[in-house]
Amino acid sequence: MKKIDVSILGCTGTVGQRLIEMLYNHPWFNIVSIAASERSAGKTYKDAAVNWYLPMDIPEDLRDTTVVDTDPSEAEAPLAFSALPSEIAKEVEGKFAEAGCVVTSNASSYRMEKDVPLIIPEVNPDHLQLIDVQKENRGWRGYIVTDPNCTAIGLAMVLKPIHDHFKLDTVYVNTMQAISGAGLPGVPGLLITDNVIPYIKGEEPKVMNETLKILGKMEDKQIKFADFKIVASCNRVPVIDGHTETVFIRTKEPADIEEVKKVLREFKGEPQELNLPSAPKQPIIVREEEDRPQPRLDRMAGTVPGMSATVGRIRPGFDENTLLLTLISHNTIRGAAGAVVLNAELLYAKNYL
Amino acid sequence: MKKIDVSILGCTGTVGQRLIEMLYNHPWFNIVSIAASERSAGKTYKDAAVNWYLPMDIPEDLRDTTVVDTDPSEAEAPLAFSALPSEIAKEVEGKFAEAGCVVTSNASSYRMEKDVPLIIPEVNPDHLQLIDVQKENRGWRGYIVTDPNCTAIGLAMVLKPIHDHFKLDTVYVNTMQAISGAGLPGVPGLLITDNVIPYIKGEEPKVMNETLKILGKMEDKQIKFADFKIVASCNRVPVIDGHTETVFIRTKEPADIEEVKKVLREFKGEPQELNLPSAPKQPIIVREEEDRPQPRLDRMAGTVPGMSATVGRIRPGFDENTLLLTLISHNTIRGAAGAVVLNAELLYAKNYL
Amino acid sequence: MKKIDVSILGCTGTVGQRLIEMLYNHPWFNIVSIAASERSAGKTYKDAAVNWYLPMDIPEDLRDTTVVDTDPSEAEAPLAFSALPSEIAKEVEGKFAEAGCVVTSNASSYRMEKDVPLIIPEVNPDHLQLIDVQKENRGWRGYIVTDPNCTAIGLAMVLKPIHDHFKLDTVYVNTMQAISGAGLPGVPGLLITDNVIPYIKGEEPKVMNETLKILGKMEDKQIKFADFKIVASCNRVPVIDGHTETVFIRTKEPADIEEVKKVLREFKGEPQELNLPSAPKQPIIVREEEDRPQPRLDRMAGTVPGMSATVGRIRPGFDENTLLLTLISHNTIRGAAGAVVLNAELLYAKNYL
Amino acid sequence: MKKIDVSILGCTGTVGQRLIEMLYNHPWFNIVSIAASERSAGKTYKDAAVNWYLPMDIPEDLRDTTVVDTDPSEAEAPLAFSALPSEIAKEVEGKFAEAGCVVTSNASSYRMEKDVPLIIPEVNPDHLQLIDVQKENRGWRGYIVTDPNCTAIGLAMVLKPIHDHFKLDTVYVNTMQAISGAGLPGVPGLLITDNVIPYIKGEEPKVMNETLKILGKMEDKQIKFADFKIVASCNRVPVIDGHTETVFIRTKEPADIEEVKKVLREFKGEPQELNLPSAPKQPIIVREEEDRPQPRLDRMAGTVPGMSATVGRIRPGFDENTLLLTLISHNTIRGAAGAVVLNAELLYAKNYL
Repeated sequence: MKKIDVSILGCTGTVGQRLIEMLYNHPWFNIVSIAASERSAGKTYKDAAVNWYLPMDIPEDLRDTTVVDTDPSEAEAPLAFSALPSEIAKEVEGKFAEAGCVVTSNASSYRMEKDVPLIIPEVNPDHLQLIDVQKENRGWRGYIVTDPNCTAIGLAMVLKPIHDHFKLDTVYVNTMQAISGAGLPGVPGLLITDNVIPYIKGEEPKVMNETLKILGKMEDKQIKFADFKIVASCNRVPVIDGHTETVFIRTKEPADIEEVKKVLREFKGEPQELNLPSAPKQPIIVREEEDRPQPRLDRMAGTVPGMSATVGRIRPGFDENTLLLTLISHNTIRGAAGAVVLNAELLYAKNYL
Repeated sequence: MKKIDVSILGCTGTVGQRLIEMLYNHPWFNIVSIAASERSAGKTYKDAAVNWYLPMDIPEDLRDTTVVDTDPSEAEAPLAFSALPSEIAKEVEGKFAEAGCVVTSNASSYRMEKDVPLIIPEVNPDHLQLIDVQKENRGWRGYIVTDPNCTAIGLAMVLKPIHDHFKLDTVYVNTMQAISGAGLPGVPGLLITDNVIPYIKGEEPKVMNETLKILGKMEDKQIKFADFKIVASCNRVPVIDGHTETVFIRTKEPADIEEVKKVLREFKGEPQELNLPSAPKQPIIVREEEDRPQPRLDRMAGTVPGMSATVGRIRPGFDENTLLLTLISHNTIRGAAGAVVLNAELLYAKNYL
Repeated sequence: MKKIDVSILGCTGTVGQRLIEMLYNHPWFNIVSIAASERSAGKTYKDAAVNWYLPMDIPEDLRDTTVVDTDPSEAEAPLAFSALPSEIAKEVEGKFAEAGCVVTSNASSYRMEKDVPLIIPEVNPDHLQLIDVQKENRGWRGYIVTDPNCTAIGLAMVLKPIHDHFKLDTVYVNTMQAISGAGLPGVPGLLITDNVIPYIKGEEPKVMNETLKILGKMEDKQIKFADFKIVASCNRVPVIDGHTETVFIRTKEPADIEEVKKVLREFKGEPQELNLPSAPKQPIIVREEEDRPQPRLDRMAGTVPGMSATVGRIRPGFDENTLLLTLISHNTIRGAAGAVVLNAELLYAKNYL
Repeated sequence: MKKIDVSILGCTGTVGQRLIEMLYNHPWFNIVSIAASERSAGKTYKDAAVNWYLPMDIPEDLRDTTVVDTDPSEAEAPLAFSALPSEIAKEVEGKFAEAGCVVTSNASSYRMEKDVPLIIPEVNPDHLQLIDVQKENRGWRGYIVTDPNCTAIGLAMVLKPIHDHFKLDTVYVNTMQAISGAGLPGVPGLLITDNVIPYIKGEEPKVMNETLKILGKMEDKQIKFADFKIVASCNRVPVIDGHTETVFIRTKEPADIEEVKKVLREFKGEPQELNLPSAPKQPIIVREEEDRPQPRLDRMAGTVPGMSATVGRIRPGFDENTLLLTLISHNTIRGAAGAVVLNAELLYAKNYL
């Protein structure tokens, strides 16, 4: 099979590094260019990625590859994976889409735009219908598909089967987020050691708004947002990778705990049906131990490491319509690099490329 | 002024160490005996407290003091501070009270007994009326007064003025608790580094039940529990000292955010009126910065280090009856050693000794 | 090929867990019994290994296996892997060897006995000649082969080619050791967070004595210890896995830095020649980056994860006979479980079983 | 007593914050201006010091003080405390000295200049004789006095009495340095959690060269450097404050361990004689416990918190001329802010101002 040529936009940060890790030996995609901001462009990758933080070394033949500008004429490929910072993603990704490129993006810039799909392949693949709307609206030859914020993605995936079966009324989520979510240099070691930082700039609205969009319905070429209430408190904790979320849920219909576990365990979607390379067999793993999930033990869970969410401590609240649970998903894999890769695989398998 | 002779029961653990730190130069109390379990009894204190974890050294003249048995005949004093493990506290504290001793206890064994006061001096000093009931019920010459669990104490103190002014309907609290709360040896470093443990044995029911008792009312020589709904998710995080709690609150009456801040800031109680030595000027400190409170920065806040709770991120939920906040209190000071000391000071100042 | 039946002695601790991880799908060995101390014997493995700390789950068919006593009649197999605590290893391992079992041990009890081989397969496989001496001396039908302390093993392996080529005169090693080296419960989280503990009970003499034995020569059925001077300072740091060691070396012959790198890179031994399953292609990986090796990035280095030592910062001291370097090896793999497995593979391949 | 007006240059970083903490209520000095780089100048201090990391809040009346440019005309005062980054310190400090200001500096820029004193008040106060040389050489009306690197300072202080009594031959020091030594943002949390970084840019030569200058002798208006051999390996560990150093020492004269302890314990200097406000009673605290010093327990040791070095594990090497020890000193107090303050106090007490 001929692989599709792809470029990586924003190749030096934590998500860019994970993209290289996931795409380097990908069965369908072939990295032909790696791009980053002016500060890095022109350097070899090994000099640009000075803060390489993965145990895997930089792949030998990328070490001396020259990082190019984030410009469609320089990073030429029919498919671009974007891990750009949001400040510049708006402009750069638009240029790529205009130039005919398909952009699968991890940046927040376009996520809440009305004509841009915000996709978790297991949850709302039908939202890809927005692609046509987007191309028409904007007159672009290419288009942009986004993935959710690293916290919203695990949450929305776990809420999906619960909402389908028991109708959500209220969700309160408290997060304990890993340091890698802030990128590099990110959170200073001096501020996070022996500490919790009870605030992450811009995070709470993202978690709330994106979740309602993802769980919304396609109607008349638009997304009708889900209509339950949701609030979030987002915290940073001294953990390398893996966001932990404790969730309090009120459902409209009574939710038996064993039934909830069952619908979570049985949850599957198109990636599993289509057997996408980065799709885990079980998107949601349910554990029964009273002290799981834990980020260090569960962040890499699943048949594709880091692509499953793990849920535990599923227990009743104070009546039959309230329940509590704890979930963990890997913020730079399922929550970022793996998400844009899975989105691209979905586009490919469904002939959107 | 003549100081009152006191004994410390359970002098070697983290709370026992803090008790020594707080009582060593106390203006009203004079340590005359230090007691611990069989494993330590008979040793000098420096040999018994092998895991001393405080920057302050063991006070010079206690280093070679012999640790005695936790028996009223050995640890003789009219007032005993108990930091005993709950497995043995039931029996031992009962023996001391029977023998005529006043026990101010940090153990959980008696907290939920109907005739035992569970006291935060700023919140429910009137519950001390249970002392007479207890002495009569049990035929004891002394009595036991308990302090709340290290998580419940900060929570109940912060909820008190909100309940008084806006009537609580529902409380969901998520905790991020410090390692010192588990004592010594406590949580293995191997399990907590780069990790969150989403479960603390026995903690969630304590937080829920104790809070409702503390905020309950004395009626006919009994406590009528507060009647709002409360659920908790308790987690351990890699922080030395200081429990962080994010709280989602639904009130029966509309709660304006600025009003909430005001009632928290102005909250005071008998310890402040009586000017007790361990009473901070402000039991609750309200901060306006978007990223405070943080355990490393705020755990020692207040005029008496570690005795104030700090609250921040007070913000609306999704309507005028819902609000969110984050609070921190020092789990081994206000949440343990400082709590039993403040209880003892209250007893003394109100002539219960 | 028929696999050899093996037992694991001390299956619940950190090294026991790693042994299960490494032996579970081993091409040559087949776990037939798992044994532990009285506290665990009789329980299922999942109930005995309550502090399981590896991301890999307990293998499904071992979860309900009953843990047996550490007795040759209960844990019957021709080959035993021992991760017993040293307090009981002396007696238990002796019993197994007496009963005809070959014991490959990670315990310290027999390491310094004159007739017991202390083996790093790449370094001193000829010391296996002591087996005959041991059997004769003790009248045992089986025998014991030991591996070195988790700190000595990386050090001795790296010193070996340097000693061979440049003759060691003096070695000063300073260690920064991971928490997992202390087992479970091991170092309390409360004592190691935001801290360095500058002392590890019994460690420094082990590092010094074992290194001299390993690098010693077989002469007349005895080991003649190496005769350079060596001192060690051992420290515990807040790292999960991977011991870091900075080494100051004085050689008798001038040691050119590039030559040192070359002999380290080219170092190989019998495991590589025999192509043992747990032998990494390169026992020693040399890195040129100024800030490597780092435990989190390099502990799993090599073709068999965790079995290579990584060396970096190789640089001159103050004259041509002094040099400095930093090395990392994985303390529970190459430094413990992987070491006893590699020893067993060597015994098997050389027909000692 | 009339206080001397002082300015702080570089007031926003970790050392600048500590300077504010130490000078805010200083008995001799009065902060009249706070200065920082262009990025901060013009802002109020609370907006400029966004990464305030100390438990103490910014002093109330400094919160809204405007940060000025690092220019002698803006930050006017007869005495300036500099915590400037070394890139700009060379130029800025020179300008201040030229303009008649006395600069007590923590920057590295001038430390190794021949006519600039590099002072630890207890060790080499006589090196202040270089002031006259400096003023004459450079035609400055003011002058610059520097303090050593945060690692060199604890080391040089501990080596001083050993050198005086037993003549140093060789010193090998291995450091485990705290995160705060890298300033802010400094070391990313993502890179230092569960890790050791075995390299600190520029640190090792500083430790070696500065130690030899500090322990050198004034001869003919010049410093004759001490002539022992010294090498260093510098590592970063996940510790907030407090550098730990393990030291291997070879002396020219036999060094009895008890004698070494004695000369360390009895070590005193001019700050103690002059009773300077920031001088601890004992510059060096010797501990006998086998597991001390530890950074979390000992960094704030002494009568002036953070101003004493603590030494432990003093033990023989392999002969009577070799010994080992472990020392800790607080890197942002004795190693930075406290050092420039103590230098200023010495200048004042000796009438150099």
